[in-house]
Amino acid sequence: MPSETPQPAFVLVRPQMGQNIGAAARAMWNFGLDRMRLVAPRDGWPNPDATAMSAGAGRLLDEAQVAGTVAEAVADCTYVLATTARPRGLTKPVLSPERAMAEARDRIARGEKVAVLFGPERAGLENADIAQANAIISVPVNPDFASLNLAQCVLLTAYEWRRQTVDVVAEDMAMGGSEWANVKELDALAKHYEERLDTAGFFFPEAKAESMKINLRNLWSRMPMTRADVQMLHGILRQMVRWKERGD
Amino acid sequence: MPSETPQPAFVLVRPQMGQNIGAAARAMWNFGLDRMRLVAPRDGWPNPDATAMSAGAGRLLDEAQVAGTVAEAVADCTYVLATTARPRGLTKPVLSPERAMAEARDRIARGEKVAVLFGPERAGLENADIAQANAIISVPVNPDFASLNLAQCVLLTAYEWRRQTVDVVAEDMAMGGSEWANVKELDALAKHYEERLDTAGFFFPEAKAESMKINLRNLWSRMPMTRADVQMLHGILRQMVRWKERGD
Repeated sequence: MPSETPQPAFVLVRPQMGQNIGAAARAMWNFGLDRMRLVAPRDGWPNPDATAMSAGAGRLLDEAQVAGTVAEAVADCTYVLATTARPRGLTKPVLSPERAMAEARDRIARGEKVAVLFGPERAGLENADIAQANAIISVPVNPDFASLNLAQCVLLTAYEWRRQTVDVVAEDMAMGGSEWANVKELDALAKHYEERLDTAGFFFPEAKAESMKINLRNLWSRMPMTRADVQMLHGILRQMVRWKERGD
Repeated sequence: MPSETPQPAFVLVRPQMGQNIGAAARAMWNFGLDRMRLVAPRDGWPNPDATAMSAGAGRLLDEAQVAGTVAEAVADCTYVLATTARPRGLTKPVLSPERAMAEARDRIARGEKVAVLFGPERAGLENADIAQANAIISVPVNPDFASLNLAQCVLLTAYEWRRQTVDVVAEDMAMGGSEWANVKELDALAKHYEERLDTAGFFFPEAKAESMKINLRNLWSRMPMTRADVQMLHGILRQMVRWKERGD
């Protein structure tokens, strides 16, 4: 059974080696975190190499939620952080691990659900993944030598979580005034715009279509949007379609 | 050549596996530390397993100072910290990694020499080692699961050193590079949407039109928008109009 402690979910995106998944589980549990989620683990799931490496933290693997895409994995979350060595030309706030975990703590205390994305061992997160996050976590490594592996990145983030929360009484459990849109709702908004704008011929030339879509998704997820905002943006698009169909 | 940066020496006391020494070197260099000292490495020195594991941080091993005892290894230091999972009945100040590295920073700034002791993989430091230290560093791990290995302990301590010393980590850097939209541009965007959506019949019923317009303006101005974002939002609307006018 997962612990009762409110906490962020740590999401391993397309992890490759089972042993790194096991090491990440240990790193999490060292600092009291036990909500792991997995997106499309390369070698399937469950993975005996992960289990062998997880000694003492195997429960996290047994309870891990597995999803096919990042959007599914964080569908219930209202605030998503992406760990990445360097920003890749997406406009997105960049936080230190310290500030990121302080933000996560405050949001969780207000009833939000928070997730942290960790990329695959070699390549890290892709822009399409990062575009679904609200902010980036960047560890202040030596610019001449940045060789953090997956479990080390998980370890430092989990350490900061504990540092920000130990001895802090969880006050302020009341919801903030606003109902924030979750990833599922933002994903639906993005899809709605993509479909309609595709029909309308917005994504042109075709060679640029993918990056235009990512930029648009990045815009939605970077914004602090309430459910009402999302409804308004749906409404705008629906009305433009009605207007066209009326043909006046 | 070691870097010029004043910094603490990290002292591995009786380390066992060469690969852990190599991993510790990488962990140090990830955060810009390059003064390693070794006390009585079990398998002698140099150690090919250490070299193989150190990829990119091999210089730290080449330059490592090797001593037979802790006393020799830290003979020149005025302040010594010992990392240990738990205090062992010695009366000694216990510091978090954060406070320990802040203390190290302040003492080094005053011209002192500081060392941090890390114990052997299995057993950790012995009381005889700890007795030679001025204070203990204790990482705030989960009391139910403390399984940090040597390189992880080095990593967290090195991370804290960097956190305490790097000048105001440049946060929001990815945002900083962006050209932000100004009020005039946001106003033009709001007007564009208002006009087109008016034509399209979005602001209905009329009694609500004014507050709908205000909500929409509020959405644009609440968002941290770049000029590129504003152009994309103009483009979306223009394309919907073209699509309608094409009438296909």
